Amino acid sequence: MPKLKVIFDTDPGIDDAMALLLLARHPRVELLGITTVFGNAEIDVVSRNALHLVQRFRLAVPVARGAAGPLVGEAGPPPTFVHGTNGLGDIPLPPVQGNLDPRPAHRLIIDLVYADPGAITIIAVGRMTNLALALAEAPDIVDKVARVVVMGGAFGHHRHTGNVSPVAEANIWGDPHAADIVFGADWPVTIVPLDVSQETQMSDRYLADLAEVAGDDGRFVRDVSAYYQEFHRQSAGMDGFYVHDSSAVAYALHPEFYRTETGAIRVATDGIAAGQTIIKPDSKRFPPGPWDGRPSQTICTEVNAAAVLDLYRRTLLGHGN
Amino acid sequence: MPKLKVIFDTDPGIDDAMALLLLARHPRVELLGITTVFGNAEIDVVSRNALHLVQRFRLAVPVARGAAGPLVGEAGPPPTFVHGTNGLGDIPLPPVQGNLDPRPAHRLIIDLVYADPGAITIIAVGRMTNLALALAEAPDIVDKVARVVVMGGAFGHHRHTGNVSPVAEANIWGDPHAADIVFGADWPVTIVPLDVSQETQMSDRYLADLAEVAGDDGRFVRDVSAYYQEFHRQSAGMDGFYVHDSSAVAYALHPEFYRTETGAIRVATDGIAAGQTIIKPDSKRFPPGPWDGRPSQTICTEVNAAAVLDLYRRTLLGHGN
Repeated sequence: MPKLKVIFDTDPGIDDAMALLLLARHPRVELLGITTVFGNAEIDVVSRNALHLVQRFRLAVPVARGAAGPLVGEAGPPPTFVHGTNGLGDIPLPPVQGNLDPRPAHRLIIDLVYADPGAITIIAVGRMTNLALALAEAPDIVDKVARVVVMGGAFGHHRHTGNVSPVAEANIWGDPHAADIVFGADWPVTIVPLDVSQETQMSDRYLADLAEVAGDDGRFVRDVSAYYQEFHRQSAGMDGFYVHDSSAVAYALHPEFYRTETGAIRVATDGIAAGQTIIKPDSKRFPPGPWDGRPSQTICTEVNAAAVLDLYRRTLLGHGN
Repeated sequence: MPKLKVIFDTDPGIDDAMALLLLARHPRVELLGITTVFGNAEIDVVSRNALHLVQRFRLAVPVARGAAGPLVGEAGPPPTFVHGTNGLGDIPLPPVQGNLDPRPAHRLIIDLVYADPGAITIIAVGRMTNLALALAEAPDIVDKVARVVVMGGAFGHHRHTGNVSPVAEANIWGDPHAADIVFGADWPVTIVPLDVSQETQMSDRYLADLAEVAGDDGRFVRDVSAYYQEFHRQSAGMDGFYVHDSSAVAYALHPEFYRTETGAIRVATDGIAAGQTIIKPDSKRFPPGPWDGRPSQTICTEVNAAAVLDLYRRTLLGHGN
């Protein structure tokens, strides 16, 4: 199998850290760069966390600092009740070693894509701001990216709602204008929404097993996710938690784990629906409207959750494929 | 069983005519008044049609003319491709006999409700404009109406989308501000959305049978729906058509045919999501938002479609219950 060349656009974030670990340990992944974006914590915090994770996971990739706020308006307060004050579940973090790349995130994205046209998959698991800025500065990257895989959005399958409003998911809600640009650009986008990430859950038992069998990595996952687990327990009465960002990595590695549908996608930017992702399925006809002329993109609607959980475990045990 | 006292707010409309026939023929229904509203055709056309149907069905109820356009903005062109130029599938219509009630629709609603407090079910199958005007003029009717049953909206169950946009259904889209008022008022509302009305379909065979066994009424249903059937065939490749407005009547008579969920409901009035009905399910928690402080209403999520079709047929055969 050919390598999967990846730029990881991220706001670490507990589940971002877990997704990065999956990328770091999977033998088929060639990670080319990490770009940070505000979201799960403020930009300085998530950038510090990215540098920490690179060191902890023994990666040798550039980390570039990205947007501190959305294209329009200002960032709200970070969700410390989900990811802790330090963005990584308040586990102790040693002083950071290593330096940020001098380029802004969107420029690193452009440079990496230009250097290897047609080869790179961008996995974006935070706000879409960096990608929108890259598109604004170098619109021709749409022809040079193999695929954009986005964790975000909610399309109402399996009766899943949004998570910041009944229709909006946090990554898209946090910069709806950027998301509308990214999904409307003429490059192939696959969205991995709550519809499938909430169908995929790591239980207490799964995490305890991982901590036992997967060495430092397994213990890290257990430790970093304890805070996240507590949030899920208190807010939704769950035993364990949803697997959001790692689901985007799982899709990039194994699209066959997912069922998909296609259609033009827009993001509501105004009123009570702000942040909602809305697909006009290619299979249905509607009167003329704001979806017309937009490219057909892909969304995940069903997942083989057991396969995703098995992929994560196998990869941390050194048996990824 | 006690009688079901009904005000029917309607924009006839082919499926409105079919729903009115169900009300007219069901032995448990006591129809107190008909109010018209722009929508499937212009207000003069739907009002003429209502008078025609009252005569044809041998009803003795007042018909009051209602709103000619939405609370905000102006009415778009009527959907003649769905309901024909005359709103009743272009079947021949004799000159109208009978006169409209001198009161505007919203005043007739208020007067009827005041005259029989606590007893009346309003079945509303068009734009919500008349109901919003009634609430504005007499806010205390919220305590005097037994239930409001609305055909409209789309909540994404069974992968049904909207029908005028990927998220909006025509009745709500046609006056989203009025719908937001009606669903936010503190009276019990049940919404019968596309999620269930599109699960209920009358086939060619069902209609042919009805024409054969149900006399004048059965032949009327077949004749008036031929145009509607052709629209469904061309736009969705269907054998037959969706049962929209009669589903609201079916719910009012037999709520046990439906599964429901409850929550605060808002209607998007701006941007690409305009006309979307959005529920915040009572079963889920969200951060503070525009649903807070609104009453919990009911939406239908599942339907026993065979039971609805059987109710319609039995009622036209004189065996309704």
